[in-house]
Amino acid sequence: MVEVVIVGSIGLDNIETPFGKVIDTLGGSAIYSSIASSFFAETGVVGVIGTDFPEQRLKEMQRKGIDIKGIETVEGKTFRWSGKYEFDLNTAKTLKTELNVMENFQPKIPEEYKKAEYVFLGNIDPELQLKVLEQIKKPKLVVSDTMNYWIETKRQKVLEVVKAVDIALMNDAEARELFRTNNLVKAAKEILKLDSDYAIIKKGEHGSVMFSDNNHFSLPGYPLENIKDPTGAGDSFAGALIGFLAKTKEVTEPNIRKAMVHGSIVASLEAEGMGVTNMDFINQFKIKERFKEFEEIVKF
Amino acid sequence: MVEVVIVGSIGLDNIETPFGKVIDTLGGSAIYSSIASSFFAETGVVGVIGTDFPEQRLKEMQRKGIDIKGIETVEGKTFRWSGKYEFDLNTAKTLKTELNVMENFQPKIPEEYKKAEYVFLGNIDPELQLKVLEQIKKPKLVVSDTMNYWIETKRQKVLEVVKAVDIALMNDAEARELFRTNNLVKAAKEILKLDSDYAIIKKGEHGSVMFSDNNHFSLPGYPLENIKDPTGAGDSFAGALIGFLAKTKEVTEPNIRKAMVHGSIVASLEAEGMGVTNMDFINQFKIKERFKEFEEIVKF
Repeated sequence: MVEVVIVGSIGLDNIETPFGKVIDTLGGSAIYSSIASSFFAETGVVGVIGTDFPEQRLKEMQRKGIDIKGIETVEGKTFRWSGKYEFDLNTAKTLKTELNVMENFQPKIPEEYKKAEYVFLGNIDPELQLKVLEQIKKPKLVVSDTMNYWIETKRQKVLEVVKAVDIALMNDAEARELFRTNNLVKAAKEILKLDSDYAIIKKGEHGSVMFSDNNHFSLPGYPLENIKDPTGAGDSFAGALIGFLAKTKEVTEPNIRKAMVHGSIVASLEAEGMGVTNMDFINQFKIKERFKEFEEIVKF
Repeated sequence: MVEVVIVGSIGLDNIETPFGKVIDTLGGSAIYSSIASSFFAETGVVGVIGTDFPEQRLKEMQRKGIDIKGIETVEGKTFRWSGKYEFDLNTAKTLKTELNVMENFQPKIPEEYKKAEYVFLGNIDPELQLKVLEQIKKPKLVVSDTMNYWIETKRQKVLEVVKAVDIALMNDAEARELFRTNNLVKAAKEILKLDSDYAIIKKGEHGSVMFSDNNHFSLPGYPLENIKDPTGAGDSFAGALIGFLAKTKEVTEPNIRKAMVHGSIVASLEAEGMGVTNMDFINQFKIKERFKEFEEIVKF
């Protein structure tokens, strides 16, 4: 039974970093986050692909443990993204984005997914995020993500999503832009004022922070010496976070801290390979090993 | 008896941030770090001032707990710095630097300071840092700091300092520039290769990290909602770090972690006021309170 439902983009990516190049590789926010979630819980993905989508990539998703009943195939071409990173690896330079079938995407949730208690609204149009939420019966936990493009074009809708979810997740630049402040503590407090129970802000190599009304948690980034490609690291963080919460079935502040550690672990392992390639080498042993490392890293 | 000797710049600053403005205020790397150190141990400062230096500022230093026997007065004008911060508060725009008497400064260590076991080589010309080191008899611990200006003009000397000290401290931009890599883990490993026992990298609002041959510690930044002026925060971190180690007399990896937490506490309290003003309100009670907060912040 599908425990986690994830909506987001599904596509084919071309990625170039100083450490390698991949062509027509499986990509999109829903892909990274659902693979990451699947390490912990049964995960179904909601998204759209075109008729040109290679059969082998669908098989690859299934092999990676994702339930693909929620993927709709529509006449036309699949979403595509091409990006390049320079040596600092901090920001991707987008070379090309082709929305293709994503442009008219109307998410339809399969009956079987409607009872799922854990929902992750990955980075897509906030109007679609809200439409997904309407279709799920009684979610126990809804987590959202977004990106600067939606903040700039549909700010009010992004704020509506933040209002509607339990955990609003975004990166530091997005939080600063959405709430027009440079101070992350102030931005997080704005999220909480909008009625989210938790604000989680991802800070790339600097880790992540969580704010609730009475608590603050700060988790440093895993010290990555051999980072190869940061594409999808934020989505992987989110996927592992919700997957861990679905597995442990405990949406409490202390358990959200543990979920963030697991998010960071999967994201750091993922970033050590190009595109999704490293996901194949992530297993429970590696996750446990890196969890112990994290315990050592923060101890004083 | 002076336990910690600190060398660095002493001057008069004009600082402007979106939250306030101070004129002719006590400033310089040696000032912030020695006040911070004095919360934990008897601290003497080595530096130079001009004959124009106001008597009241000298009294202010003593009132703040610094031993000033190591301050030499030289005919001429005191070092001056003017800087301005925009809303992001991340980098100061230097409006004016007047080296004045700092230009021909030759540090002379008073006899009484020569037996001090803890030495902090604050940000000044690396050649002067090395000259200070020659004059101290048997230091138990030497910590160094630097800045981009010296890396760009005297890189080999900066590397010599790193080689000569036990803990090489610098900020993330400096570490990246000194070792010509974007990867902080790689930069830290270069520091260790040069024979420093510990590499500590300050990351501003993102906290600090420590690397030794077998260990890694990462401390998040204190979540500052009301930061007013980051001037001197890095120096305060360093001062509290060495002061704490001098007080506890235990230069071990676990205790260096605790010293970093104390560095971060004093730096965060300092940054909540303009210039050095907040230093007057720092006390053991506030330090203990923020230490407990830090324990809560990182727990998972």
